[in-house]
Amino acid sequence: MSSQPIPHTDNVSLAPGGGAVRILDQSLLPGETVYLDLSAPEELYEAIASLRVRGAPAIGIFAGYALYVLSLRPGAEDFPAFLARCREDRDYLNASRPTAVNLQHMLDRTLAAAEGASSIKEARAAMQETAFAIHREDIEMCRAISEYGLSLVKDGDGVLTHCNAGPLATSKYGTGLGPLFLSRERGMTLHAWVDETRPLLQGARLTAYELQRAGVDCTLICDNMASLVMKEGKINACFVGCDRVAANGDTANKIGTSGVAILAKHYGIPFYVLGPSSTIDFTCPDGAHIPIELRDGGEIKEKFFAKPSSLPEVKCYNPAFDVTDHSLITAIVTEKGVCYPPFDESFAALFGRKED
Amino acid sequence: MSSQPIPHTDNVSLAPGGGAVRILDQSLLPGETVYLDLSAPEELYEAIASLRVRGAPAIGIFAGYALYVLSLRPGAEDFPAFLARCREDRDYLNASRPTAVNLQHMLDRTLAAAEGASSIKEARAAMQETAFAIHREDIEMCRAISEYGLSLVKDGDGVLTHCNAGPLATSKYGTGLGPLFLSRERGMTLHAWVDETRPLLQGARLTAYELQRAGVDCTLICDNMASLVMKEGKINACFVGCDRVAANGDTANKIGTSGVAILAKHYGIPFYVLGPSSTIDFTCPDGAHIPIELRDGGEIKEKFFAKPSSLPEVKCYNPAFDVTDHSLITAIVTEKGVCYPPFDESFAALFGRKED
Repeated sequence: MSSQPIPHTDNVSLAPGGGAVRILDQSLLPGETVYLDLSAPEELYEAIASLRVRGAPAIGIFAGYALYVLSLRPGAEDFPAFLARCREDRDYLNASRPTAVNLQHMLDRTLAAAEGASSIKEARAAMQETAFAIHREDIEMCRAISEYGLSLVKDGDGVLTHCNAGPLATSKYGTGLGPLFLSRERGMTLHAWVDETRPLLQGARLTAYELQRAGVDCTLICDNMASLVMKEGKINACFVGCDRVAANGDTANKIGTSGVAILAKHYGIPFYVLGPSSTIDFTCPDGAHIPIELRDGGEIKEKFFAKPSSLPEVKCYNPAFDVTDHSLITAIVTEKGVCYPPFDESFAALFGRKED
Repeated sequence: MSSQPIPHTDNVSLAPGGGAVRILDQSLLPGETVYLDLSAPEELYEAIASLRVRGAPAIGIFAGYALYVLSLRPGAEDFPAFLARCREDRDYLNASRPTAVNLQHMLDRTLAAAEGASSIKEARAAMQETAFAIHREDIEMCRAISEYGLSLVKDGDGVLTHCNAGPLATSKYGTGLGPLFLSRERGMTLHAWVDETRPLLQGARLTAYELQRAGVDCTLICDNMASLVMKEGKINACFVGCDRVAANGDTANKIGTSGVAILAKHYGIPFYVLGPSSTIDFTCPDGAHIPIELRDGGEIKEKFFAKPSSLPEVKCYNPAFDVTDHSLITAIVTEKGVCYPPFDESFAALFGRKED
């Protein structure tokens, strides 16, 4: 067993006693703050499928703990039967959100720990340690991103954010929001301006929730107010997360991110993308190769509203992401350092990749 | 009596029989299409106060009809008593929305018609003709704006709009939306992309409603999707209305308008402001002199939602308007013609104003 401290974050952790995964039920936020201890296969599956736990890193952490907790069930006659059941559990949990690559990756990593052992007891210990390691690594990565990000602003600055790239979606600190949480620890005061982020309102529901609870000064605005807030001199930097970064620095993130970047450029405000280096896809040359997911128009007209906002027959166009051109990005902040344009060169310098 | 045709528009008109004002109750849109015939003082007052009729030009038209309809009540013993009651009605209706300058202006214009008469019968005829004239003039003005606006686009173009500057807020055609309605009459096809316009959703509730009903091809988007839609080549021009235009062309309009203009400039798309020349305030040198109304944060967090979108203690910043810098505006379209930059010079050329 490792002598490292047991990792803990509010959104996902191993429950005291070690027999359950404890999560903050994100599907009830911001109205209700409810923690759930989950140990039955069906409960664990449902937590992912119903978005009670969400955000690729958080799902990855959950996956490690979930597979470990399931391994504690009695009933396996011998080690081969135990391993067979672990593989079944892996397949079962993996089906809860088929497109979540990180879920599969972390389930496989935890399963591999069991497969490398030679007894049930040893396997359970290895799985627990792997789950802790996944969790610890995410905290360390987010902390490093946050440190680099925080170096780009100064005490008293106003920071505009879009969508949610905070601790709820990761572990501690988060990525895009990391510098804001870290600033609290350092006794600095940053002022967060939070885009509500239509149509799914991740800014209002999640970002404002976690900043407010952490004591970070924050103000909620509608997405279309960012231009005025910037013009009024309230914003010194923009911090956003990223879903996928192409080799040239073009960045896919929540719909509306590219608009924020264009406004920031217009007003001369630096625009920073923050994310793990694993988000950089060196096989993707530029943003034109990143497909944009189109979602149902009901998210625009109906979801969250007491009554539909428009006529049933009105068409909607509901792209979930957009691509911010690399020319609009001041820097891309990873756990390994800050990359400035030209990004192909700074990526190569930091990550040892060379263009052929 | 004039031999001109009696004006009619769907949102406000004199009801058949002439004894009531007929309105489309905008407070129920888009869910319910309900027409109301109003003739009692309290009903007429309440229709303005509760935003059943809204939009400065529409309120002005309503004011003329309302004062005329009230003048038809029996009970005035003689002409002086009739005039005294007209003045009381004017004061009563004027209190329904104290900041609506156009309401006062059109009430006074209709009252003056009565005051210029020499009998109750003559006064009622003059008031009715004044109400018709106010209505007719607005239709003519909107048509002229729409004609000039339509000359700036071509068949098949995509047009992005923000907020609502259509027939519901005016009479026929509208201002910012006028070219879209006129294009239908001409057998042209324009594709409207409608910003939902947070926080009050005028785009989703009103613009999409009236475009859809008129058979104009329209697609609803969230405000933060405009950047992607422009990038994808779907937009050939932006058409917006205006609340106040300064002498240098700086334009106050619904919050988010300046952001649309910055995006349009970034993508090389023309950005047009459409409105009556009366909106140009030559006493206001530039946008810095236009105060921005701040409204309650509940409009962002609570209004329209089934549940609050964020924690009760989260601060909101809710500016109702922003100012679009004149440097971002391709042209300002009025009923007298299209003004190009520099706007102080084009305004002077069109309206005969000179800078001293």
